[in-house]
Amino acid sequence: MNKYCFGVDIGGTTVKIGLFTTDGTIVDKWEIKTSKEDGGSRILSDVSESLSEKMQEKGITKDEIEGIGIGVPGPVDDKGTVLTCVNLGWGTFNVAEEVTRLTGITNVKAGNDANVAALGEMWLGGGKGYSDMIMITLGTGVGGGVIHNGKIITGTKGAAGEIGHMLVNYEEEDPCNCGRKGCLEQYASATGIVKVAKRLLAKSEEESTIRDKENLSAKMIFDAAKEGDKIATECVEELGWYLGVACANIAAVVEPDVYVIGGGVSKAGVILLDVIQRHYEKYAFHAHKDKEFKLAELGNDAGIVGAAKLVIN
Amino acid sequence: MNKYCFGVDIGGTTVKIGLFTTDGTIVDKWEIKTSKEDGGSRILSDVSESLSEKMQEKGITKDEIEGIGIGVPGPVDDKGTVLTCVNLGWGTFNVAEEVTRLTGITNVKAGNDANVAALGEMWLGGGKGYSDMIMITLGTGVGGGVIHNGKIITGTKGAAGEIGHMLVNYEEEDPCNCGRKGCLEQYASATGIVKVAKRLLAKSEEESTIRDKENLSAKMIFDAAKEGDKIATECVEELGWYLGVACANIAAVVEPDVYVIGGGVSKAGVILLDVIQRHYEKYAFHAHKDKEFKLAELGNDAGIVGAAKLVIN
Repeated sequence: MNKYCFGVDIGGTTVKIGLFTTDGTIVDKWEIKTSKEDGGSRILSDVSESLSEKMQEKGITKDEIEGIGIGVPGPVDDKGTVLTCVNLGWGTFNVAEEVTRLTGITNVKAGNDANVAALGEMWLGGGKGYSDMIMITLGTGVGGGVIHNGKIITGTKGAAGEIGHMLVNYEEEDPCNCGRKGCLEQYASATGIVKVAKRLLAKSEEESTIRDKENLSAKMIFDAAKEGDKIATECVEELGWYLGVACANIAAVVEPDVYVIGGGVSKAGVILLDVIQRHYEKYAFHAHKDKEFKLAELGNDAGIVGAAKLVIN
Repeated sequence: MNKYCFGVDIGGTTVKIGLFTTDGTIVDKWEIKTSKEDGGSRILSDVSESLSEKMQEKGITKDEIEGIGIGVPGPVDDKGTVLTCVNLGWGTFNVAEEVTRLTGITNVKAGNDANVAALGEMWLGGGKGYSDMIMITLGTGVGGGVIHNGKIITGTKGAAGEIGHMLVNYEEEDPCNCGRKGCLEQYASATGIVKVAKRLLAKSEEESTIRDKENLSAKMIFDAAKEGDKIATECVEELGWYLGVACANIAAVVEPDVYVIGGGVSKAGVILLDVIQRHYEKYAFHAHKDKEFKLAELGNDAGIVGAAKLVIN
């Protein structure tokens, strides 16, 4: 195997890029702006130029590059074809082939950014040492990635790992962003737990340190729960219940070794793992009990790490 | 690749065995009794003798055998280790290694019987032509198998594909056979739909051809639904609803191409596929819509077919 590889994580605002050694050390990382003009047509040539400049700067030749991995904020199939990516203005085309054309490097692979981040956490983060892993990212929404035998399950049309859109509440009346009602994302995301809190506060007269707070946030709710606030604790229990039940149902399908929880909400730390795991163990089928629950470790670097891993076997 | 292989499906009463050509033709199939005496210690030597006799009968030498695949009614890990199998009286040991020792054939693989049946349906049955498939077997219980990239997802402890134990009803008060409450199996199995029918009949005064029937069966309920009986139709709708929602949640994890429905209940035919698919399409995330729903085609042969496929790449 060659000495270096690149991991590229394309976001709506910036493209994060990492230069790695193929044994898993970050040599350098940097960002460039995402040029969304003209349907995002310049994004990949900007990336290609940036990689070329970095190779010159470091005195690295093409022969030393094992490959380029790319995470894209949209569905990507097994062959590297992105199937429309609204955030970037992209239609359907093969990202991997295009980057090969631009760089002359043949080993190029592309994947969905959430899936790629999961792969990164498996390689160097919370899922290190495991080969069958579920990553759940609790941010503004709830994302996910499914790793089986050390590789991403992409799904037929690149839409596997949409854990946030598992249907977990049949009674819900408010719609999810996806238009359906009762998705996990409605209870377990940063915005979801705030909505849950507002509902619980409205239904109760109980005093609470999170009552009448402006800009109530997931962090404020978890902080209050850590201090023993009753309503905040109920919110955390509700989030843990939905996540625990969802993880139990995921186990019934693929039975992973480990669940890695990331995203902004995961900054709450051990209290979050504990509540998910407690409900998981209660609801899991007997053959699925005793699984590991871990916090993600790579933060914003998960995308470039996982992208790099795409091209390393 | 050699010309022949064996597929062995070990059940609690009989062992089904098939001799196949490696291009997928059944040359012969037969059964032997499952000897459960002495903790099932003679089962594998009985199988081994039976294979040996068949090879003599057909004039086939060991050199012509590509391998032996074995389905076992219990959890089996990726390496062929069975993790206790109550039905057969087995503890934990490596089935594949034991059969190699007994037969002198090195390419031996073992898998859980439900997973192996799923592989069979992918190879020569309802899932032919697909590589990412979910099999759901609606029998006395609800079994399942998850095929990804043409191979079984076994799960860390051999317990993936336990589709029947997805939690689908949080309000259920009666326990499932597994001890939890609200498993898919409680509504979608042959016994489950009868329980659903009894509940609906008890709650309603509506005339129904399935009212007061002795030995009410899934078949009687489907037949009545086909004739337009209102309560029977409600039962079928309820079964379809739970299966449709479960399939939508499976798609959120692995996004397969096709769902293959087998087991005794699937003899109901197109009415069953239609009701599952209708509810699936209603509840699936937008990126997961338009999947295929098919009936299993191999019946009791799925186990030997899938077992044979285990040793053919």
